[in-house]
Amino acid sequence: MTDNMALPEFLLHPLVRAALEEDLSPCGDVTTRAVIPAGTTCEARLRAREPGVVSGMQIAALTFRLLDPTLRVEVRVPDGSTCAAGDSLLEIAGPAASILAAERVALNFAGRLSGIATLTARHVAETRGTRARITCTRKTTPGLRLVEKQAVLHGGGSNHRFGLSDAILIKDNHIAAAGGVEPALRAARAHASHMLRIEIEVDRMDQLETVLAIGGADVVLLDNMETAMLREAVKLVGGRMITEASGNMTLERIAEVAATGVDYISSGALTHSAPVLDLGLDF
Amino acid sequence: MTDNMALPEFLLHPLVRAALEEDLSPCGDVTTRAVIPAGTTCEARLRAREPGVVSGMQIAALTFRLLDPTLRVEVRVPDGSTCAAGDSLLEIAGPAASILAAERVALNFAGRLSGIATLTARHVAETRGTRARITCTRKTTPGLRLVEKQAVLHGGGSNHRFGLSDAILIKDNHIAAAGGVEPALRAARAHASHMLRIEIEVDRMDQLETVLAIGGADVVLLDNMETAMLREAVKLVGGRMITEASGNMTLERIAEVAATGVDYISSGALTHSAPVLDLGLDF
Amino acid sequence: MTDNMALPEFLLHPLVRAALEEDLSPCGDVTTRAVIPAGTTCEARLRAREPGVVSGMQIAALTFRLLDPTLRVEVRVPDGSTCAAGDSLLEIAGPAASILAAERVALNFAGRLSGIATLTARHVAETRGTRARITCTRKTTPGLRLVEKQAVLHGGGSNHRFGLSDAILIKDNHIAAAGGVEPALRAARAHASHMLRIEIEVDRMDQLETVLAIGGADVVLLDNMETAMLREAVKLVGGRMITEASGNMTLERIAEVAATGVDYISSGALTHSAPVLDLGLDF
Amino acid sequence: MTDNMALPEFLLHPLVRAALEEDLSPCGDVTTRAVIPAGTTCEARLRAREPGVVSGMQIAALTFRLLDPTLRVEVRVPDGSTCAAGDSLLEIAGPAASILAAERVALNFAGRLSGIATLTARHVAETRGTRARITCTRKTTPGLRLVEKQAVLHGGGSNHRFGLSDAILIKDNHIAAAGGVEPALRAARAHASHMLRIEIEVDRMDQLETVLAIGGADVVLLDNMETAMLREAVKLVGGRMITEASGNMTLERIAEVAATGVDYISSGALTHSAPVLDLGLDF
Amino acid sequence: MTDNMALPEFLLHPLVRAALEEDLSPCGDVTTRAVIPAGTTCEARLRAREPGVVSGMQIAALTFRLLDPTLRVEVRVPDGSTCAAGDSLLEIAGPAASILAAERVALNFAGRLSGIATLTARHVAETRGTRARITCTRKTTPGLRLVEKQAVLHGGGSNHRFGLSDAILIKDNHIAAAGGVEPALRAARAHASHMLRIEIEVDRMDQLETVLAIGGADVVLLDNMETAMLREAVKLVGGRMITEASGNMTLERIAEVAATGVDYISSGALTHSAPVLDLGLDF
Amino acid sequence: MTDNMALPEFLLHPLVRAALEEDLSPCGDVTTRAVIPAGTTCEARLRAREPGVVSGMQIAALTFRLLDPTLRVEVRVPDGSTCAAGDSLLEIAGPAASILAAERVALNFAGRLSGIATLTARHVAETRGTRARITCTRKTTPGLRLVEKQAVLHGGGSNHRFGLSDAILIKDNHIAAAGGVEPALRAARAHASHMLRIEIEVDRMDQLETVLAIGGADVVLLDNMETAMLREAVKLVGGRMITEASGNMTLERIAEVAATGVDYISSGALTHSAPVLDLGLDF
Repeated sequence: MTDNMALPEFLLHPLVRAALEEDLSPCGDVTTRAVIPAGTTCEARLRAREPGVVSGMQIAALTFRLLDPTLRVEVRVPDGSTCAAGDSLLEIAGPAASILAAERVALNFAGRLSGIATLTARHVAETRGTRARITCTRKTTPGLRLVEKQAVLHGGGSNHRFGLSDAILIKDNHIAAAGGVEPALRAARAHASHMLRIEIEVDRMDQLETVLAIGGADVVLLDNMETAMLREAVKLVGGRMITEASGNMTLERIAEVAATGVDYISSGALTHSAPVLDLGLDF
Repeated sequence: MTDNMALPEFLLHPLVRAALEEDLSPCGDVTTRAVIPAGTTCEARLRAREPGVVSGMQIAALTFRLLDPTLRVEVRVPDGSTCAAGDSLLEIAGPAASILAAERVALNFAGRLSGIATLTARHVAETRGTRARITCTRKTTPGLRLVEKQAVLHGGGSNHRFGLSDAILIKDNHIAAAGGVEPALRAARAHASHMLRIEIEVDRMDQLETVLAIGGADVVLLDNMETAMLREAVKLVGGRMITEASGNMTLERIAEVAATGVDYISSGALTHSAPVLDLGLDF
Repeated sequence: MTDNMALPEFLLHPLVRAALEEDLSPCGDVTTRAVIPAGTTCEARLRAREPGVVSGMQIAALTFRLLDPTLRVEVRVPDGSTCAAGDSLLEIAGPAASILAAERVALNFAGRLSGIATLTARHVAETRGTRARITCTRKTTPGLRLVEKQAVLHGGGSNHRFGLSDAILIKDNHIAAAGGVEPALRAARAHASHMLRIEIEVDRMDQLETVLAIGGADVVLLDNMETAMLREAVKLVGGRMITEASGNMTLERIAEVAATGVDYISSGALTHSAPVLDLGLDF
Repeated sequence: MTDNMALPEFLLHPLVRAALEEDLSPCGDVTTRAVIPAGTTCEARLRAREPGVVSGMQIAALTFRLLDPTLRVEVRVPDGSTCAAGDSLLEIAGPAASILAAERVALNFAGRLSGIATLTARHVAETRGTRARITCTRKTTPGLRLVEKQAVLHGGGSNHRFGLSDAILIKDNHIAAAGGVEPALRAARAHASHMLRIEIEVDRMDQLETVLAIGGADVVLLDNMETAMLREAVKLVGGRMITEASGNMTLERIAEVAATGVDYISSGALTHSAPVLDLGLDF
Repeated sequence: MTDNMALPEFLLHPLVRAALEEDLSPCGDVTTRAVIPAGTTCEARLRAREPGVVSGMQIAALTFRLLDPTLRVEVRVPDGSTCAAGDSLLEIAGPAASILAAERVALNFAGRLSGIATLTARHVAETRGTRARITCTRKTTPGLRLVEKQAVLHGGGSNHRFGLSDAILIKDNHIAAAGGVEPALRAARAHASHMLRIEIEVDRMDQLETVLAIGGADVVLLDNMETAMLREAVKLVGGRMITEASGNMTLERIAEVAATGVDYISSGALTHSAPVLDLGLDF
Repeated sequence: MTDNMALPEFLLHPLVRAALEEDLSPCGDVTTRAVIPAGTTCEARLRAREPGVVSGMQIAALTFRLLDPTLRVEVRVPDGSTCAAGDSLLEIAGPAASILAAERVALNFAGRLSGIATLTARHVAETRGTRARITCTRKTTPGLRLVEKQAVLHGGGSNHRFGLSDAILIKDNHIAAAGGVEPALRAARAHASHMLRIEIEVDRMDQLETVLAIGGADVVLLDNMETAMLREAVKLVGGRMITEASGNMTLERIAEVAATGVDYISSGALTHSAPVLDLGLDF
C-alpha cells in the first residue's frame, strides 16, 4: 500500500458528520456542558490496549477536528502499521469538553476498523509463501463500506469489487435466470462496458470446463469447493483466468487453501464478524 | 416488548437509502442489467441458516420496498422472535432484477442485527432467576445505533442512554475535571434539566459512600469491580439508587454478576463484537 | 449557566446554512450585486434598540462567517447577558456586500432568540425568593428547538425534555389508552430505559394520590390546577416527586404559583408567543 | 386567493421531515412505545380553542401522513377560512401511537401559522374602504418563510419579495455605499434583470423628488414617515410608482395610514411577533 | 458587470461537492492511488486551447480547493474576460494526486460555462449599435442553472427570470386556461406580489393591441414573429412596455432582429446547445 | 440493450427533486398560482419536433409524478427508440397547474438526453460493417453523468468507465509521475483490485511496444493517432488487448477510424457538445 491510499477527506466528511450527529444530537453533550468548568483544557492519548494492526486513525483524527477545529490532533501510528499494547496511536490537545464529546465516536470508528485490519492481517499471515491474496466481500456494515474496505487494505488484504456498479459477478441465480452459463456470459460481454471485469461463479468442475470453453470471463469464483477440488480447479484453469476461492474460508482453513495455488481467497468474516480491537482514551 | 416497539419508518428511510446508494451507486447493478432477461420474475425467501433471535426484518423489508415499490414483501418471523435453522423469515416476490439488486443490503442489515439480538439473548439467558437486566452501551457501529439498540431490545435486553443528549453519565474524567465527586454531582443537578437522569461512575467503595452521602444520582455505575465487591456495593446502596455493573462483563461472568443483586449489567460487546447470524436468500 | 453551555458549532451549521439558502437562493442578493461598487468595505454594529436579555449571538456570528469567511466578527455582549437600548452586541467588519447579504438572517435569529430570553427572564424575575424554576415545553418553532431551548437557558430558565425520545411524559390520552394510571406507569417502568425519567400528568387530587401510591414516577405534572389546589398538591407530594405546574401559566400568575412551593413552572408561551427583541444593524 | 394557492407538496416535504426528526429523533416516541398497547386505534380532532383565521392545515395534514401513511386525515376547514372556538379543523383516524407522536409537530405548525393569518386578518380589517393592502417582510422565522408567507396570504394579506433574489430593494445603506440615489438607481437598472422590479427606500420628501426625477423605480418605500408626510408623498407620486409605507406600522395606526391613499403597508410584526392561535387535539 | 457579480461561495458548495462525489465516489481515484508515488507534487495550468470568453474559473478553483484544501489555486484570467488560445487561465500547485483527481470535474465545469459565455458573446456582438440585449431562458441544464446564468452574464448577456418563483410569465397555455388575455392579466395583478414583474406572450398584432389596452404588463414577449412584424410591434408598443423577441432566434438572425428596436432577444440555445470551449490542464 | 437497462428509480429521485427545486423554489410557480383557475385539468403530449433517438422518458415521467402524484403519465415511445417529427412520446393528464409547473424541467431533461442519444446514433451509424463500437468519456455534465451515460446506451453506444473509482486509466501524466510505462503498469497491478480493468494511454508506436512487452493492461488507449498509425497499432496489438481510439474523433472521421479494426472509438463530444433534440409540450 502506498501513502496515496489515504482517502480524500471530503469523501469521509459525511460519514463523520453523521456519526457525530448520531451521538450528539439533538442538544450536545449534556454531561460535559453541565459538569466541566469552562476553559478546562487537557491532553489525551488514544492508546491500544492489545496488539494489532491499526486502521481508522485518519477518520478518528477527522472526528476530533470536525467537532472542534481548535483541537490539535496528531496521528502517532499511521493506518496500516502494527501496534503493541500500550502504544499511543493518536494524541489530542485542547478543550476538555470537546475531547470528551468526540471520544466515543472516534473510538467506535477506530476500534472497529482496527479490528478488521487485525483480523485481515491474521488471515494474510496464513498465506505466507503462497501466491494467494486475502480479499474482502460486499458483506460490510451498511454505511461503512468505504472505510471497512480501507481497513482490509491496512491489514494487508486486497479489495474485491466495491459494489454492484464496478464489476460483473455472475452468480448461480443469474445463471439460472439467464438460462445457463453460456447465455449469461454472452449477455455480460455484449451489454457491459469494456472497462468492467467479469467474474463468474462455479461450484462444479463441469461448470468450470464450460466457462473455460466459452471464454470471456476474467475471474472465476470457485465457490464452496473442498480443498482437493480447488487444487484440481486451479490446475485446470492453468492461468487462463484469475482464480478466487470462496465459501466457508475460516481462518483455520486459509493455509491449506492458499497452498492450492489459488490467486485470491475471499472472506465475508473479515468485515462482518471481526471483533473490535480494544482501544481507549487516556487523559 | 410491545408491538409498538416498531420504529416509525420515516426514521429508517435515510439509513436504508444510504445503504442502497452505497451498494448501487453510481450506476446500478451492472450484472443484473446485463444478464437477467427483461420481465423475469421470481420468489425468494430470506432464511436462517442457524438458530437465533431475529432482528432487522422491518428494515430488510423496507430495503426491498424502497428499491422497488412493486415488490411484494412479507415478514414471516417478526423481529424479536426466535428462529431455527432453515426457517423462512421474509418472503419477497416480483422482478428478479430488483430482488437480486437489494439482496446484499437486506442481508447485511438482517445478519448483523440478528447477530446482536442473538448474542443479547444469550446474555439474558444467563440472568434467569435474578433481577438483573442486560443493557447496551454507546459502543455501537457509527450510523447504526438506532437499529442496533432495537436489536438489543429484540434480544430481550434493555437500552441504556441513546447518546450524549438524553442522560447524564459522570465518568472518572468528568469527576477529575470537575474537582471531585461532590462538585461534579452538584453541577450536574444545578445545570441539567430535571427531566434527565444522572448516573455516576465509581470504582471504589469509598467513592460509592461519597455518592450516597451527597445524593442526587439516580443510577450508579459500578465499574470494573470484582464480583465480591459488586455484591458489597449492591448491599451498601440498598435500593437508594439503581445499580449497574460494567467493565469486562463477558458472557461467562454474567450469571455470577447477576447473582450479586445488581439491577443492570452493561456490555459493549453486544453491539461492537457480535458475529453475524448466518442468513441467506433462497430463490 | 456555565460557558460550556455554548453549543458545538457543527450542530448549528445546518440551521444557519438552511436559513442563508432560504434568503439568498437561488441566485444571491441581486441588490448588492447590482448596486454596491466592488471592493467596498465597512464596519457594522448589531445594536439593541430596547433593553433585554441577549441570545443568538453565537448563531448570528456564525451566520456572517458562513456567508463570508473573510468577515471579522466579534461578540461584544455574550449570550445570557442583559443589554440596554443602544448597546453594541456584535461587531462585523469586511466587504459591505457580504454584511448586507447576511444582515437579515442574522437579525432574524438574534431578534427572535433574544425575545425568548427576555420573556423568560421576566418570568424568572417573578419567582424570586421561591424554589420554583421556569421551564419551557415542546411548543417551539419547527426547526429551531435547539436554539430556542438555549435561549430559555440564556434567560435564566431551565429546559424540559428536548423531544419525544429523551424522557417519558404520560399525559391524559396515554393514561386513557393504557387503561388507567396504574397500567400506564407499570408499562412505562417495564419497557423504558432505566436512564429515562418518567413524568405523569394529573389534574385532580385523587389522581395524584394514585400516582403516589403506585410509585415509579420521578416528576408529576400538575396540570391546569387552581393555585389553592396546587398548594395542596405540593404539600401532599411532600418531596417524594419533583412537582411541575403547567397550564395557563401567564406571567401575571407566576409569582402566586411560585409561592405554592412547586419545583417547576412550565410555559409554552416562552417559545411560541415571545415577541422579538428589537435589534438593528448600524453601519 | 385561488385554490391553486396550495403549495406543491414536494416543497413542504423537507420542512415537515425536519420537524418530525427534530421531535422524534433519535429513537422515536419513548412514551407511546412503552405505554400504548399495540393495535390501539383512535380518532382525533384538531380544534380551534379561540376564533381566528386558519393556516397550516395543508402542512399539519402532511405531518400526520408522513409520520404514518396509514393514517386517514381530512381537512375540515381549509387554509384561509375563518374559524370559531370549538370548530374541528382537521380530523385524523388510525393508530393511536402515530397520532400521539405527530400531534405536537402538527400543532406547532398550525398554531403558529394560524396565529400569523389571524393577526394579518386583523390588520387587513383596518384597511377596509381604502386601496391599501397589508404586506409582509423578510422578518420571518429562519426556515419557515415559505409557510409564513402563505399564512399572510391566508389572512388576506399580500406578499412582498420572498428573499434577496427575486426583487431589488435599495435601502439607505445601499444608497450610501453607491454614492447617492442616482448612481444607485442607475446601477440597479443597468445590472439587474429586466424581469426584476426595483424598489427604493426614501424617508424624506426631497429624496422622493429625486427618485421621481430620475425614474426607473417601480415601487417606493416610504419609510418611517408621519401620517401627514405619507399623505403628501402619495400625492406627490401621483400613481407614477407603487407606494409602500413601512416602519412602526402598528395595528393601531393601520387605519390612519391606509387612509393616506398608500398602496401597500408592510409590517414585520405579522411574522415576527404574532402570538399563536390556541389549537388543541381532542381524542 | 461589477466585481460583486461573483457568487457567495456557500451557494456553490453543494454543486461542487455533488460533482466531485459523482466522479470520485464510491472509493476515490483508484488510478492515482495505485500509481502516483506518495509525496509527488506538481504544478498545473488550466489553459484555453481556443479563443473565447472565460467563465467557470470561480467554480473550477473551488473544485480544486474542496478536493484538497492544501492546493494553492490562483485565477489568472477572471470570469468574464476574453482569452486567446494558449492562455493560462488558472494555476494550481500541490499534491499531484489531488490535482489529477480534481482535473476532470474542474474542466467539465469550466469548459461548459466558457462555452456558454463564448456563444453569448457572439450573440451580443451581433447587437452592436442597437438597444437590444441578449438574454437567456429557463432552458438550462438541470442542476446548473445558477452557474449557467452567470456564464451568460460573463458573456455580456442579461438574465431573464431565474425560475418559476421570481417573475410572472403568462404564456399561451395560461391564457387559454384563464379564458383570454384579459382575465389572465387581471388575475396576475390581483393575486401576485407587487414586487413581481409580469410578462405576457403574444404572437399576433391583435393580441398585442389587447394587452396594451388592458395594461398591467411590464414586459411583452413577442413570440415567433417575422422580423417585419416585430418592427411593427415595437413601434406599436412605443415604450409603454419592455419588448422581448423570442422563438427561433438563431445567431444568423440576431442582427436583423436587433435592428427592429426590440429591447431584449432571448435564446434557449445559449444554454441548451452551446458547444464546450476547449480547455485542458497542462502539467 | 435489454429492458433491464432502466435504472432503479430511487437513483433518479435526488436528481429530479433537485431539478424541480431549482425551478420551483423558493415559492412555487407564481404564474399558475395566480392565473390558472382552481380545478382546471388538461391533457398534454410531449412531442418530438424533429426526428431522432429518444432518451429521458423515464426521468421526464418521474418529473411529472414527483411534482404531483395525481398526474397520470404514460410513456408512448420508450427510451432507446427512434422517433419522427410530430411523434407523441409521453402523455400526461391531470391538474393543469401541475403539468405547467413541471413542463420545463421535464423538457430540459428529455431534450438534452435525446440530443445525446441522437448524436450517438449518428456516430454509431458510421461504424456499420466494422467491429468498432462508439463509447463515451467522463466529459459529462456535472451532476448528470448517470443519465447522460444512459443516453449514450439509448443511442446504441457503449459506456466507458463511470468515474475514477471503477477502472484504472493510466494517462501520460500518471506515466510521467510514476517514472515510466513499466513502473506505472506494475504499480497498477500491485495495488489495484483484481476486479478492476486497467487501461493505459499511448500515443506512439514504441510506447505501444513497451506496453505489449510488459503486459498487465486489459485495454490500450490509442490517443491522438493518425488513421494510418491507428491501423498499424491495431495490427501490432493483434487481439492481445482491447483497443480504443480517442482524440479528435469527429463524426466525419468515425467511418475511417472504424475501418482500422479498432474495438472502441471514444468521443467526449457525445456528452459535452450534443445540441438538444427539439421537443415541446402540446396541450
